[in-house]
Amino acid sequence: MKAWVLGGAAALSATMIATAAWADEGMWLPRQTQDIAAQVRAAGLEIDPALLSNLQAAPLNAIVSLGGCSASFVSPQGLVATNHHCVQGSLQYNSSPDQDRLTNGFLARRLQDEVRAAPGSRIFVIEELRDVTADMNRGLTARTTGIDRYNRLEENRKSLIAACERQPSRRCDVRAYYGGSTYFLQQQLEIKDVRLVYAPAMGIGNFGGETDNWMWPRHTGDFGFYRAYVAPDGSSADYSEANVPYRPRSHLRIATEGVTDGDFVMVAGFPGTTSRLVTAEEAIFQFDQLYPVQTRLLTDYANLIEQRTEGDQAAQIKYASILAGVENYEKKSQGEIAGAKAIDLAARKTEQQNAYRSWIREGGRRRQPYATAARDLDALVQEANATALADTRLGTINRAQLYAAAKLLYRYAQEQQKPDAERESGYQQRDRLPIQQRLQQIERRYDARVDRAVLEQALVEYRKVDAASRDAAFERTLEQIGLDRLYADTELDETAARLAWLDRPVADFERSTDPFIRLAVASYDWGLRRETEAKTRAGRTQAARSVYLQGMREWADANGRPLYPDANGSLRFTYGKVTGRQRDGLIWTPFTTAEGLLAKHTGEGEFDLPDRAVELIRDRDYGRYVAPSLGTLPVDYLSTVDITNGNSGSATLNARGEFVGLAFDGTLDGVISDWSYDPTINRTIHVDSRFMLWTMDKVDGADRLLEEMGVRR
Amino acid sequence: MKAWVLGGAAALSATMIATAAWADEGMWLPRQTQDIAAQVRAAGLEIDPALLSNLQAAPLNAIVSLGGCSASFVSPQGLVATNHHCVQGSLQYNSSPDQDRLTNGFLARRLQDEVRAAPGSRIFVIEELRDVTADMNRGLTARTTGIDRYNRLEENRKSLIAACERQPSRRCDVRAYYGGSTYFLQQQLEIKDVRLVYAPAMGIGNFGGETDNWMWPRHTGDFGFYRAYVAPDGSSADYSEANVPYRPRSHLRIATEGVTDGDFVMVAGFPGTTSRLVTAEEAIFQFDQLYPVQTRLLTDYANLIEQRTEGDQAAQIKYASILAGVENYEKKSQGEIAGAKAIDLAARKTEQQNAYRSWIREGGRRRQPYATAARDLDALVQEANATALADTRLGTINRAQLYAAAKLLYRYAQEQQKPDAERESGYQQRDRLPIQQRLQQIERRYDARVDRAVLEQALVEYRKVDAASRDAAFERTLEQIGLDRLYADTELDETAARLAWLDRPVADFERSTDPFIRLAVASYDWGLRRETEAKTRAGRTQAARSVYLQGMREWADANGRPLYPDANGSLRFTYGKVTGRQRDGLIWTPFTTAEGLLAKHTGEGEFDLPDRAVELIRDRDYGRYVAPSLGTLPVDYLSTVDITNGNSGSATLNARGEFVGLAFDGTLDGVISDWSYDPTINRTIHVDSRFMLWTMDKVDGADRLLEEMGVRR
Repeated sequence: MKAWVLGGAAALSATMIATAAWADEGMWLPRQTQDIAAQVRAAGLEIDPALLSNLQAAPLNAIVSLGGCSASFVSPQGLVATNHHCVQGSLQYNSSPDQDRLTNGFLARRLQDEVRAAPGSRIFVIEELRDVTADMNRGLTARTTGIDRYNRLEENRKSLIAACERQPSRRCDVRAYYGGSTYFLQQQLEIKDVRLVYAPAMGIGNFGGETDNWMWPRHTGDFGFYRAYVAPDGSSADYSEANVPYRPRSHLRIATEGVTDGDFVMVAGFPGTTSRLVTAEEAIFQFDQLYPVQTRLLTDYANLIEQRTEGDQAAQIKYASILAGVENYEKKSQGEIAGAKAIDLAARKTEQQNAYRSWIREGGRRRQPYATAARDLDALVQEANATALADTRLGTINRAQLYAAAKLLYRYAQEQQKPDAERESGYQQRDRLPIQQRLQQIERRYDARVDRAVLEQALVEYRKVDAASRDAAFERTLEQIGLDRLYADTELDETAARLAWLDRPVADFERSTDPFIRLAVASYDWGLRRETEAKTRAGRTQAARSVYLQGMREWADANGRPLYPDANGSLRFTYGKVTGRQRDGLIWTPFTTAEGLLAKHTGEGEFDLPDRAVELIRDRDYGRYVAPSLGTLPVDYLSTVDITNGNSGSATLNARGEFVGLAFDGTLDGVISDWSYDPTINRTIHVDSRFMLWTMDKVDGADRLLEEMGVRR
Repeated sequence: MKAWVLGGAAALSATMIATAAWADEGMWLPRQTQDIAAQVRAAGLEIDPALLSNLQAAPLNAIVSLGGCSASFVSPQGLVATNHHCVQGSLQYNSSPDQDRLTNGFLARRLQDEVRAAPGSRIFVIEELRDVTADMNRGLTARTTGIDRYNRLEENRKSLIAACERQPSRRCDVRAYYGGSTYFLQQQLEIKDVRLVYAPAMGIGNFGGETDNWMWPRHTGDFGFYRAYVAPDGSSADYSEANVPYRPRSHLRIATEGVTDGDFVMVAGFPGTTSRLVTAEEAIFQFDQLYPVQTRLLTDYANLIEQRTEGDQAAQIKYASILAGVENYEKKSQGEIAGAKAIDLAARKTEQQNAYRSWIREGGRRRQPYATAARDLDALVQEANATALADTRLGTINRAQLYAAAKLLYRYAQEQQKPDAERESGYQQRDRLPIQQRLQQIERRYDARVDRAVLEQALVEYRKVDAASRDAAFERTLEQIGLDRLYADTELDETAARLAWLDRPVADFERSTDPFIRLAVASYDWGLRRETEAKTRAGRTQAARSVYLQGMREWADANGRPLYPDANGSLRFTYGKVTGRQRDGLIWTPFTTAEGLLAKHTGEGEFDLPDRAVELIRDRDYGRYVAPSLGTLPVDYLSTVDITNGNSGSATLNARGEFVGLAFDGTLDGVISDWSYDPTINRTIHVDSRFMLWTMDKVDGADRLLEEMGVRR
């Protein structure tokens, strides 16, 4: 947010702040790299900045999405590098108590040994990012508001997507930027045959575990590899033995030299969500009221799963991924709360907002639309805040996996009654396969005993909401059934039975005696009512916020500093430099090393290196992976690049666009950057490419992959 | 322990280790400074090392003990500087819900405004430290063992003390060094009129509280001032309005310049206990078995006090000091456990022990006594370990304050039946006043509701011990009385009633119906039996350990590196340098600053600076207290000096023996130094004298004291 800030810390001049902030901040749209070309060059970029706007050329066309994680092609045969925690689901999927690949790691010695990734795994290769604002606004006037506005935008969005997806094996999306003042259509090739190639043992890939999560110093080798497979004719296809490795148009070259302190680095990936452009009131509500409740609910959830899976290895494997996700989110929220206090987010947001609104007022009638939008937006925010706490509590019941599955199935059946184009987003023909895969995956993540405890805990929260806001039909039906029969009588716990519901008509659901289906049918009307209310508010909010943020862009441009949009899961570019961090009495140096890794190794729990790695480090057998400036093997490093959730697995590139590592985390007191970026605080943690290569070479003997990546000569 | 180590880390040569370790390690007896004079000079000492052996001259004769804390005279009028946490009991004693001096701090504007310190507060001025080994061994032969040995040593000790204390107002003690191969008599002038002069607000003196305790970076202004008062004729006297400030023979000069990175610093004080000379088996038992139980018991105790005092400010004030002590000990134990793992204490101790015992074996018959002592000691350690866990559990019932008071009173009455010289140590005439003060202090630390909960918790632990090892008479009596009547019917909760028991005869106790007195009477025989068993083992252990450690001294001397004795509460000297610490990815810089203090200030809880301090720091109003090398006001700093519990409040001196701050803490991963010192890990935290002076000058306006200390010209 600093990019458009005029005020700031007392001791520095406004220019110093602006420069310092602007230098390392921003999740830029590829096309915006032209607007900031001079700055990126000054920061150290050696290739032409125009290349970073070009989705058809390297390095950008080597960057892929896994849907949730970022990744990149690192060989001509479709080898994809990403984070260990991004392939963890596939390790889990290919694990059993007998063969614990999650713990021990996995290496396909030969191409034919590569195994199928978890169901639903996809590699999305970006092909186009096109401004569709005019198409989206078709049929809208400034007066169109509420549910009409929402529906019209949805209709336009769906028809844009449908047109795009008429091409084979393309996934397309249309996302709002700047609150819907701009829309881009993102077209991606969807690769459906994804295979797990290699991941180191947990004792490397997740070394330090939850203890070190969001922390520095860090010693996690958070990397793993997938491979994209396609039909022999090169087209995207479902898994088949006949499939062959995909040949990407480009792949990243592995840098022969790693980075050193002060080096320029950049990251391209798919940051998920930031809230830097929200109003001050939205931020204040979030931190003062919503987060305290949400984090408490998450802590309860995580504690419950831990208790109920204790001593049951099969259940622990099933819930490992859910638990990891919850704990990560929980820790991040707590970090954001602390960070908001530390930087005084409320004051900072208020000051920024006041500056922008002063500018609006100074513009008089010419900026009247922005003034109106500001007033409308403020009123809408107040409305939304009034129901948000109840929504959070009510939402916890969707943690019950079979209940969520039944609702998904019933809603899908309902939507099937309409022509495809009129169906709700997420329930169209294009969504059938992902839905099927979600339904299937439950088999690897569901344990009836644990799920029931989760539901019971959720119901306690549910009932804290005043009765008028709750779903009476749901509660009545649940009482009739009772929790014992709910879990004893359902057939949805069997994958085949669950999947068999996918194409059945609404009438079958209404006649069903399956207790979870009965619950889903009973709660349908209430859910739809809530949804309509939410859509109505969303339509009104889009109308106000798009104008409000359009004004903010104008204001930022007038100050000579372009505004980048909040992260929304689309491709972004960010740059910065390798650097530590200094606080009072404490310095973070930018690199950790193999010796530090060994010093943390206890041989137990989260700090349990493979024996081979211990031996190699004791012998200082680092081969050619030593960092000259350190005189030893680097493990992780810090940089100022501006990333967030969704950037996990993003390739880190040097000034020449070569691969020098993978971004995988931030630090806990820096996560407040999702709300407001501070260049003195915000640091990204990367696993050093030299540590990756050393592990592959010396620890795991992944010679085949090193040769493929052009590292072994 | 490194001082007598031959082996060590693989990468360094033996000489390097020896030098590095020896340079900064050691809690030396004053007389030993002659043996290490060359090293101390080389480290940077500018005054004659011989001065540091001389208790009659500055700086050593300005060093005083508070009994538990260390302190020093800093003015010719008996002004004593120590830690805030060492005067906290007196702040609490002078606090009430209406006048919360504990929170707000206290400053006596004029001499007559100085208030009485908590009952029992003493200032001990050291006058002599004399080798009394020959006197202690009088009447002993190598064959005297068990209870006979114990009793003879006690008798000799008591008669030495009695002779010493025939001088007026002297407190004398005889402590064992090297397991009793040497004894010193320490003679101190006991100053009984101690007054609280000044302490900053908790928001400075305890800034960071438990959160920052044992941590770096640290920003605690952990200092406060007492004053010693004596009768107008200069003799020590109880409190009287007629008393006048004591005029010490010396006082420390406040350095005009503070310290800077790399500077030589030294500390003289009264370290309490270390276990560096225990056998490997003793260390291993402690960490593998005893600590896990002890820390769990302490956590339960602290949690209980917090729960039961919640929402009750009066009870919170009463238990603040107990709770602080428990939490501090708890955190330290946990740190020791982690530290023992980190440095692999078991392996280190075993290696050292093997080296010493090899030397014994190589000496053949000439070193046969050491071999015998080693064998005997090992057997005794096994014996002691077998009962230690039960003792820990049984001991928790002494947390019940009135039960402990009743036992103290009854034992005192029992001992009064003997001639003074034959009474058990701790129950002689010389102990009457401290006992009386302990009994009185309960009024400020006792809450019946909380105490009962503490006892109930302790009884659960008590009953985990097998019945044969428990006290059947105690349990029977407690069952007869019941907890309700125990607390309802006792009169010991009234101070006057409690004190009235102090000189009553045994028969009165035996007739008493006060439930706590009944409990104490009932448990007396069992307690005495346990005590006799313990004394018998102590006598045998002293016989073996004194010889064993005598051998270790011989071995250390043969290696050219004198052995210093374990800390035992007597005056010691340690030196080192101001320096940070480096780990992988992390550097601790040696100073924290006012800006860092302000950055931690949240205005809430443990991070709540006084408004005046906030203003001054915002204005960078640091006066002449800026550290030139930092360009700002320093707060705390790190050094390598080797201290432990009991050193709290120790003056830190520069190379010229001038006052440059107060030692007040270590860091959590360095507390393992109580068992084995590691120069790469061990750091002491000091409050910088410049921060003390700034607080006195700018925040609290303590001009009177600054003038007295010769700082204000």
